[in-house]
Amino acid sequence: MAPAYIVFVGTFVHLPRSTSKTLAIQQGALWVSAADGRIKGTDWTVITVGDLHDLLKEKSWIPEDAPRYKSGTRVKIVRAREEYNEFFFPGFIDTHIHAPQYPNNGLFGSTTLLDWLKQYTFPMEASFGSSLPNIPSPKAFRVYNQVVSRTLANGTTFASYFATIHVSATNLLATLCQKRGQRALIGRVCMDNPDFSESYYIDPSTEESVELNKEVISYIQSIDPQGTMIKPIITPRFALTCTPKAMRGLADLAASYEPPLHIQTHISENKQEIHDVHCQFPSAKSYADVYDTYGLLTPRTILAHGVHLSPDEQDLIHNRGAKVSHCPASNSALGSGICPVRKLLDKGITVGLGTDVSGGYSPSILEAVRQACLVSRLLRHVEPASEGDEGKRLVLSVEEALYLATRGGAAAVNMENDIGGFDDGMLFDAQLIHLGRFLPANRYSSGESQVDVFGWETWEEKIHKWVWSGNDRNVKGVWVGGKLVHGEDDVEYGSRSSWWTWLLSAGVVGVGAVVAFRRLRL
Amino acid sequence: MAPAYIVFVGTFVHLPRSTSKTLAIQQGALWVSAADGRIKGTDWTVITVGDLHDLLKEKSWIPEDAPRYKSGTRVKIVRAREEYNEFFFPGFIDTHIHAPQYPNNGLFGSTTLLDWLKQYTFPMEASFGSSLPNIPSPKAFRVYNQVVSRTLANGTTFASYFATIHVSATNLLATLCQKRGQRALIGRVCMDNPDFSESYYIDPSTEESVELNKEVISYIQSIDPQGTMIKPIITPRFALTCTPKAMRGLADLAASYEPPLHIQTHISENKQEIHDVHCQFPSAKSYADVYDTYGLLTPRTILAHGVHLSPDEQDLIHNRGAKVSHCPASNSALGSGICPVRKLLDKGITVGLGTDVSGGYSPSILEAVRQACLVSRLLRHVEPASEGDEGKRLVLSVEEALYLATRGGAAAVNMENDIGGFDDGMLFDAQLIHLGRFLPANRYSSGESQVDVFGWETWEEKIHKWVWSGNDRNVKGVWVGGKLVHGEDDVEYGSRSSWWTWLLSAGVVGVGAVVAFRRLRL
Repeated sequence: MAPAYIVFVGTFVHLPRSTSKTLAIQQGALWVSAADGRIKGTDWTVITVGDLHDLLKEKSWIPEDAPRYKSGTRVKIVRAREEYNEFFFPGFIDTHIHAPQYPNNGLFGSTTLLDWLKQYTFPMEASFGSSLPNIPSPKAFRVYNQVVSRTLANGTTFASYFATIHVSATNLLATLCQKRGQRALIGRVCMDNPDFSESYYIDPSTEESVELNKEVISYIQSIDPQGTMIKPIITPRFALTCTPKAMRGLADLAASYEPPLHIQTHISENKQEIHDVHCQFPSAKSYADVYDTYGLLTPRTILAHGVHLSPDEQDLIHNRGAKVSHCPASNSALGSGICPVRKLLDKGITVGLGTDVSGGYSPSILEAVRQACLVSRLLRHVEPASEGDEGKRLVLSVEEALYLATRGGAAAVNMENDIGGFDDGMLFDAQLIHLGRFLPANRYSSGESQVDVFGWETWEEKIHKWVWSGNDRNVKGVWVGGKLVHGEDDVEYGSRSSWWTWLLSAGVVGVGAVVAFRRLRL
Repeated sequence: MAPAYIVFVGTFVHLPRSTSKTLAIQQGALWVSAADGRIKGTDWTVITVGDLHDLLKEKSWIPEDAPRYKSGTRVKIVRAREEYNEFFFPGFIDTHIHAPQYPNNGLFGSTTLLDWLKQYTFPMEASFGSSLPNIPSPKAFRVYNQVVSRTLANGTTFASYFATIHVSATNLLATLCQKRGQRALIGRVCMDNPDFSESYYIDPSTEESVELNKEVISYIQSIDPQGTMIKPIITPRFALTCTPKAMRGLADLAASYEPPLHIQTHISENKQEIHDVHCQFPSAKSYADVYDTYGLLTPRTILAHGVHLSPDEQDLIHNRGAKVSHCPASNSALGSGICPVRKLLDKGITVGLGTDVSGGYSPSILEAVRQACLVSRLLRHVEPASEGDEGKRLVLSVEEALYLATRGGAAAVNMENDIGGFDDGMLFDAQLIHLGRFLPANRYSSGESQVDVFGWETWEEKIHKWVWSGNDRNVKGVWVGGKLVHGEDDVEYGSRSSWWTWLLSAGVVGVGAVVAFRRLRL
């Protein structure tokens, strides 16, 4: 029988919503409704198997595979095993990723943004076109399936995707995300400016640059009317690729829905790009002002990069309630610069992390966490006025970077009440991290995990080790809305099996006790 | 019977000694003498199994497990399988790694060099002491075994280790490297200055700071008289921890051997450190001048970091023939800055890569390659005069970073004629990299490797993908001097087994041919 609840038992680590400074590390049980995927309760007194048994008894819960005649509410039990240094962590939120660029991961040579776009990116994206209307190319199927697979395997439970200009391939990406169980914003890329775009990869006209989105929006709303898993996002590529008329049309299109649609684009990534934007829009006060002029800066807008924003632009973005996606791996790989995240946070701007595949070379938000920490430590050398204490203040701690990867990302996609943490009522989008057993004293190991835990580490230190040495090998299971969407075969079965072992041994002890009791009576 | 040669067959990738700009990618056979571990010949016409058969016949070679009555020189055959996108690459050379700090990997919080040393490093290193003379602590055994294991698993065939101040633990590290088959320089850390060092972790006196090294040197020379695998290296920690008398004594000690011993230390890592060095040595012209004054700048000296060297210091280092170990992961993690590697290379300085475990968070030189590329792309933002073309020139290409990791490292440890490439006569220190099969068209995969190869990539692009997405999972086997020192169980056996398959099928074809021939005669 299908379980009504999934009870997760073990260590839970997340960032409290109120602070990005400290990890909240709790041991106990947390249960999720199978019906709506939301956290319905927690009990932080559940430590031993006996405690869990008491909880089940108190709630009249029985394991999903208990004999049929047993009465009670069926539950599935999933354990993070202490002896393997396992813990649950909120799923990562990737606020900026280009799905079709995935095959180019690691291929950028020594280029910077504008030549990289023309040399690597546009040819790849253009190849997602199909000669048959409404039928996506096999390449789109192959690549998009792999992107969703890789990001899920790296613990990404929510992604804000840029697709290509092609309607059918974009719709396919939406379908795949829904089928595979990854929450996503799906955007058809809009680019209609022939001055920047290549003739082989451009929207047919300014009108169609706007109109074609309606096909994607209505398709997505037809397969997911509530937008539980998949929502459309309006996606003008960036100022240089879009005419003013298209930008205005796209802003109006987003605003014409209730609630208004999300919007995503790029801003202030590269100095040459900024210079070119000033040339293309001479009357605009700034790059941010271009978007603001055409109505694209909204509380539901995600701006990728924001490396070189002026204080005025930061104020404008904050005033409009737009969000920033920080993509440190990409910014280093393309030599764009270092985004001063602390300054954006000081202004009150909401910041999430993005992989920016394939400007970024990795589909992993954990890599983005590492890179966010690393580049923030170099900021003191970039901004001459920030030596000494000011330089220190610019540093992002591991905890803060993890906050950006979860709570920050959730707020960037306007879902801060739904995902990013383990608060009561939130959707259970989570990953089970497996560090492995403590290193034995008398053997060496170069096995499954690169994270070496010796046994004397605190939980905080184990989390730091995971951040700096972990990768997809440590992701044992991924759940979205309480549903397993990626994992080793035994991640849920194993829990049942150990539950049965416990039941069996409890049974043996019980029978033994009854026998002993009878004997005493005789 | 033991084979006389090991014949490696498949794709070989290395950087030619003459240029760091282009990968040399060759397919064929390369054979190594089992006696001395050196490359004795290559045949780049060996593509098919038939070609290999011809080669064996021409050389009168037979497989090591051919029947006993067969005559010929026995050889072992190891294949890099084309269908799994496998290739041989030179082993990595880690020119700067602190073995005892390994358990602190990933633990540095938001500290910078000097507070990190006192908060994390000295307490860890001090714990390697033993209350029993000449008997190393169990902790040293556990940690050192794991360091050697992890670095080998990441393809490091040569490491220049800092140990601790303890003689017995340092000797143990030497023994472990020799036993496990990793080439290494082993240095007992010398620190006698009470003004900087902690009272719980300091050499007993200036005299002993020098004298204790003799015990390590004689031990290492007793277990490896030729220095084939293990050599001692004189290791004053850095200027702040050493008195002038100790530095002079150590320089004299190194010079008293024939050939002179290697020397390693740190230089110009952090701005506060540089300031403190100027205060401690007010008469010195520069940090580099301190070392030069006491005789520590020699052609066999490795200087770690060199982030903030002045042009004069760079000239001095070049004139003395000393080398620099570039440790980008560490320099970012501790916020030290970005070493302008191009400028050092322009001066003619030899540069290798170092992990700097645990200032660096990773035991992988491949991670150092990535970080060297990334930070070089940020240099244009650090050095104000280097925007535009000058900024571009500072960028290290993937090829150049791989050159530093192999040829550069080899030159930094004065072994450029022995390791770092696949030249005739060199020692075969190599890794077998396995990227995995091309991604299937109709399935997704999140399996063994993070490197996704779609099938249309050139070899150069596959190498780039390996650099940006690869890790220890892609290291299928590691050989030092032609001897397998790390690898999956089947890496050598598998090759024999497929050899037998080939022999069997060749046999079947042969018998078939004979039968057919006879029939025709009848």
